[in-house]
Amino acid sequence: MNTYGNIFRLTEFGESHGPALGGVIDGMPSGIEIDLDRIQHQLDRRRPGQSTIVTARDEKDRVEILSGVFEGKTTGTPIGFIVKNSDQHSSDYENLRDVCRPSHADYTYSQKYGIRDHRGGGRSSARATLSRVVGGALAMEALRTQGIRIYAYTSSVGSINLPDDFEEVLGDPAVIDTNPVRCPATDVAAAMEAYIREVKGKGDTVGGVVTCVITGLPVGLGQPVFDKLNARLAAAMMSINAAKGFEVGMGFKGCTNLGSVMNDQWVVDSDGRVSTSTNNSGGIQGGISNGMPVVFRVAFKPVATVLRQTDGVTSGGEPVSVMPRGRHDPCVLPRAVPVVEAMAAMTVLDAMLLDRAVRW
Amino acid sequence: MNTYGNIFRLTEFGESHGPALGGVIDGMPSGIEIDLDRIQHQLDRRRPGQSTIVTARDEKDRVEILSGVFEGKTTGTPIGFIVKNSDQHSSDYENLRDVCRPSHADYTYSQKYGIRDHRGGGRSSARATLSRVVGGALAMEALRTQGIRIYAYTSSVGSINLPDDFEEVLGDPAVIDTNPVRCPATDVAAAMEAYIREVKGKGDTVGGVVTCVITGLPVGLGQPVFDKLNARLAAAMMSINAAKGFEVGMGFKGCTNLGSVMNDQWVVDSDGRVSTSTNNSGGIQGGISNGMPVVFRVAFKPVATVLRQTDGVTSGGEPVSVMPRGRHDPCVLPRAVPVVEAMAAMTVLDAMLLDRAVRW
Amino acid sequence: MNTYGNIFRLTEFGESHGPALGGVIDGMPSGIEIDLDRIQHQLDRRRPGQSTIVTARDEKDRVEILSGVFEGKTTGTPIGFIVKNSDQHSSDYENLRDVCRPSHADYTYSQKYGIRDHRGGGRSSARATLSRVVGGALAMEALRTQGIRIYAYTSSVGSINLPDDFEEVLGDPAVIDTNPVRCPATDVAAAMEAYIREVKGKGDTVGGVVTCVITGLPVGLGQPVFDKLNARLAAAMMSINAAKGFEVGMGFKGCTNLGSVMNDQWVVDSDGRVSTSTNNSGGIQGGISNGMPVVFRVAFKPVATVLRQTDGVTSGGEPVSVMPRGRHDPCVLPRAVPVVEAMAAMTVLDAMLLDRAVRW
Amino acid sequence: MNTYGNIFRLTEFGESHGPALGGVIDGMPSGIEIDLDRIQHQLDRRRPGQSTIVTARDEKDRVEILSGVFEGKTTGTPIGFIVKNSDQHSSDYENLRDVCRPSHADYTYSQKYGIRDHRGGGRSSARATLSRVVGGALAMEALRTQGIRIYAYTSSVGSINLPDDFEEVLGDPAVIDTNPVRCPATDVAAAMEAYIREVKGKGDTVGGVVTCVITGLPVGLGQPVFDKLNARLAAAMMSINAAKGFEVGMGFKGCTNLGSVMNDQWVVDSDGRVSTSTNNSGGIQGGISNGMPVVFRVAFKPVATVLRQTDGVTSGGEPVSVMPRGRHDPCVLPRAVPVVEAMAAMTVLDAMLLDRAVRW
Repeated sequence: MNTYGNIFRLTEFGESHGPALGGVIDGMPSGIEIDLDRIQHQLDRRRPGQSTIVTARDEKDRVEILSGVFEGKTTGTPIGFIVKNSDQHSSDYENLRDVCRPSHADYTYSQKYGIRDHRGGGRSSARATLSRVVGGALAMEALRTQGIRIYAYTSSVGSINLPDDFEEVLGDPAVIDTNPVRCPATDVAAAMEAYIREVKGKGDTVGGVVTCVITGLPVGLGQPVFDKLNARLAAAMMSINAAKGFEVGMGFKGCTNLGSVMNDQWVVDSDGRVSTSTNNSGGIQGGISNGMPVVFRVAFKPVATVLRQTDGVTSGGEPVSVMPRGRHDPCVLPRAVPVVEAMAAMTVLDAMLLDRAVRW
Repeated sequence: MNTYGNIFRLTEFGESHGPALGGVIDGMPSGIEIDLDRIQHQLDRRRPGQSTIVTARDEKDRVEILSGVFEGKTTGTPIGFIVKNSDQHSSDYENLRDVCRPSHADYTYSQKYGIRDHRGGGRSSARATLSRVVGGALAMEALRTQGIRIYAYTSSVGSINLPDDFEEVLGDPAVIDTNPVRCPATDVAAAMEAYIREVKGKGDTVGGVVTCVITGLPVGLGQPVFDKLNARLAAAMMSINAAKGFEVGMGFKGCTNLGSVMNDQWVVDSDGRVSTSTNNSGGIQGGISNGMPVVFRVAFKPVATVLRQTDGVTSGGEPVSVMPRGRHDPCVLPRAVPVVEAMAAMTVLDAMLLDRAVRW
Repeated sequence: MNTYGNIFRLTEFGESHGPALGGVIDGMPSGIEIDLDRIQHQLDRRRPGQSTIVTARDEKDRVEILSGVFEGKTTGTPIGFIVKNSDQHSSDYENLRDVCRPSHADYTYSQKYGIRDHRGGGRSSARATLSRVVGGALAMEALRTQGIRIYAYTSSVGSINLPDDFEEVLGDPAVIDTNPVRCPATDVAAAMEAYIREVKGKGDTVGGVVTCVITGLPVGLGQPVFDKLNARLAAAMMSINAAKGFEVGMGFKGCTNLGSVMNDQWVVDSDGRVSTSTNNSGGIQGGISNGMPVVFRVAFKPVATVLRQTDGVTSGGEPVSVMPRGRHDPCVLPRAVPVVEAMAAMTVLDAMLLDRAVRW
Repeated sequence: MNTYGNIFRLTEFGESHGPALGGVIDGMPSGIEIDLDRIQHQLDRRRPGQSTIVTARDEKDRVEILSGVFEGKTTGTPIGFIVKNSDQHSSDYENLRDVCRPSHADYTYSQKYGIRDHRGGGRSSARATLSRVVGGALAMEALRTQGIRIYAYTSSVGSINLPDDFEEVLGDPAVIDTNPVRCPATDVAAAMEAYIREVKGKGDTVGGVVTCVITGLPVGLGQPVFDKLNARLAAAMMSINAAKGFEVGMGFKGCTNLGSVMNDQWVVDSDGRVSTSTNNSGGIQGGISNGMPVVFRVAFKPVATVLRQTDGVTSGGEPVSVMPRGRHDPCVLPRAVPVVEAMAAMTVLDAMLLDRAVRW
């Protein structure tokens, strides 16, 4: 169950303090030129130590491709890859060997498996998302050839938000990476960054929302019943560490409104192009893409590691007081952005390949 | 892709105006006593024509079990079932043979498949959810033997909401079905019902939110990476017709808060029972159930069929004006409640069976 | 686990003495014209009571299609179907309620599930293969549009065999159905038929081999590692009741020979068509079709029900003597022929759809 | 499609001349002690260069485990592993860059993917089976705790065979590895070895049969319809490079016989143990293990690389003459033995885990 996807599939492995993390990409179409710099760039965007508002763990996170690429092109065979761990401080966690922290996965892992690598969160560490970033970056190499683009950005931190309709006026996506928060409105980004520093200064953490926009999708992606494109995206996003909510298009707020207001009227322009006057459907109708941009939002909870005394429990069920150590993010949002993009890219490519399968 | 689940699996078929809908349940444990009345009861809760605030289509929706049950008990072999259609008014839809309505699946189906049963929404009709209700009711027969209970209810209609903390004080779930809205607070229910009638009177529609609470779950359900229990629930819920948002535990609102506030502290009572002081995690940590109630919310959009002239498009891409006919729900929430319960039941049973698979 | 296939998928249900058997076909391409007579014809070839060398149970085996076909064409949505049972003699089996016969599935089912529908073999009855025949016949409707043809025939009954190289000289496949054995050489068929009658007269049963030839396949079908076309065909065939062996191309006999003799040399004709001088590979190299006919053989054991006193065991593990009753086939081969074709058709169509999925 | 299994799953990657091969084991039960020497031992049995009757390529084939094992025990999380390539002679293959050899996968890969790593067979090299051996060895670590044992051995090389009933009298399995052919009868082994040397001396190759015996299985493994234990084993074995045939129990020969002769009569001994008087069913009835040893045979074709001039074809479809170079096996059987064991072990463990999933 460490595999994501139906045709394009990522199977991943690795613990925070083991020798390496990595995975296997299956179902990658053949003949796609691979730009390793672009793949490494996405890893760098997820990398710890990239700015002063993320964890200080310093990992190079260099990806090594072991198969499936021959003379710069994919061959249709599986792509194995690894990323070595280097800057582990395993001793920071010795006090947690048998202790389960609040709102972490320590207790549930211990109960499910009866054994657990406690170092740095072990398997439940968000460090494992780096394999998703590699998978997503490879998927993007294929999607790029079809004119599909995917942008995610931080739209809320605490109660600091972009305006509701920002996604419609999103100008140059290049702005997203001009600030460490990855928010495309410079002034809002500055407020978010200041707030994260304030929270960090108190040893606390804060959550927020990442918005993702996918453009250039053909009409017809998604399977109409259980594997609706929105259902697949929801599962993809809710599988990311710390995700607590997902909404597409009109989302929760639009659902309080009337049908007469929220329906997206069809528009045919003078060149015969079909679109909708509004995009409350978020680019998906009946589970299938309708050619409009796909827009969704993912809520991430505040990081569970707060630097203060908390009430834990041992694996055996005894109460225990815990004082966290280690290096942690005050806010997961900036580093979640490339992970959201990666999961979106894999989901879209998988849907494209599935769609081809039944076109006669 | 008309199959849901890994071990416990529902494969379903059927169109709104075809001879019958139905499905196959695979992976049902053997030796479970089946109470057909309880299964029919869940179908009756989803049935059209059950009250004056839902569609007037009058279907008996009687389920016929064709296999897999022998002398009142499951045998571990697949359970085939059908539900015959009877009260179709196919002629109501003849004007839609080649017309795609706003915010419906007409256009995306036409483009994906090149052909479409246009009668009553065809395959994209919410009528297809009745097979899910049968699957969920069968799953509940197994879960019941383990002390697991699942309740869903309408928590918002338009801007009329239950209080935020209602799920914690939810008293007698039997109240849910004492009103046609399926809202467990009688006064709020009355306001919702009045509002739905008002909207219906204008030929309009309205959306809202269904909340679901699952109690009695053991610790350990859910696979920790891509198949997190919350990810599976998200996919299950977002696959229901008209769903636009999903959140678990603290959800979107809690994600604006601080870690120090939202962390669920561990509590060990004098009998050694482990729980948490709050349930912002919604019963799931690291993708695995922690023994607390699982709580999630699903946002449903207003029904797309509004009884007024709208801008459609033909399958061929020509603009066309559409005036809907047929019998429709002004608000999907009351009938969505048993569907949410059904998807939750199938998801939980599947997670239980998967969990057993790797217990050595 | 009652589902076969990845993209084109049959999920089936039903017991020998229940109200109906049936299934759901998922992944059927849209826009395929369906000739119901051809589908019924394949069912008729599998039907009991069709000749005096098969079981006397008299079933009409009429297929009812419940969804997925609109105005004579497939819509890409799942095709539900049922076949009602009518001529059951359940009382013939009352003495077997708690008795497990030799070389039947009675004991293993009882031990696995703790409960079993004992009537007519219940779920383990070869009657369940009729759903496969429906699935295969639907797959053939799609394959036919691509010029692909599939023929199976009886090549051995007991020690009466067609010559080894018969598959290469197979003339008019229409001969296959001119005799009740379904052997394409009239004289050999006569000998087989006489032998089956002789065996039947003694209350005994006999096994044999079915050969299958698939022509018109494009180069490139099959996934090269675990889902090799030959591996998929092997699983498909070995999943048929009573199958005990599978071989492709040179098979067991060719494996005793030298590489220099068995290698298939490449030949390019004057029109640039690529083929091989021999077909010891059976049309598959590296798990992928090479454009030559795919040829394989399936061995079926003698039917386990022999009309004489045998040593059984109760579900509880007590020894018991069993004297079988009921109506049974003396030789499964004639009725296995359409089942082999059906499994081959579903396997090939699934491989074609999967192949499309990764063509960029 | 480079994944094998449902619950216990191997996903593997790697080419013959790339930097490394490897894979990910998912679904491994937690808490199993892992003996790395036993795993390496199985790899050594598959290793090239182990004797003078196998290829001279000299690879150390050291496995590196990267995750999923903590302080010597499995944690239930995925086990990533790699095996580095070292002794490649890539230049031996430069003449094959655009040439497709007879009875190899060169042509079918080229046509399917449009691109191919031609060095040493690339992805289609039997070298990729080493990942299966790692997966199988890990599965054996779990099966061992349940008293299950798996032995494979060479039973035929060319026309030199073990006696038909040898599997029933198989004495000390330790004899299997006392000769380079891996045949448990010393005299037959000597004849086989002499024959392989003779064939090798002529630059030719020869095929044969591997027999596999699994003891200690509980009653009840296998899903009764499409995922019969025999069907899963057939797919597993036919997915091994060069496999052309599979038979279980009575196999092809037994299928020519009468039911009255081949039926396995039930026997209950004085201690109440249930078994059968013969084992023509090969330990499987109705697709489910019956507690008797599971016995099957796999036919392997002669290696396609024969050291003489042959008729090839270019990727573009032009005729070309090929004279093979490189280091090759004259007979694949000795090195196939551990691969057969590995696929059997993974299949059995997966069936055990699936069986647990539906025991209520």
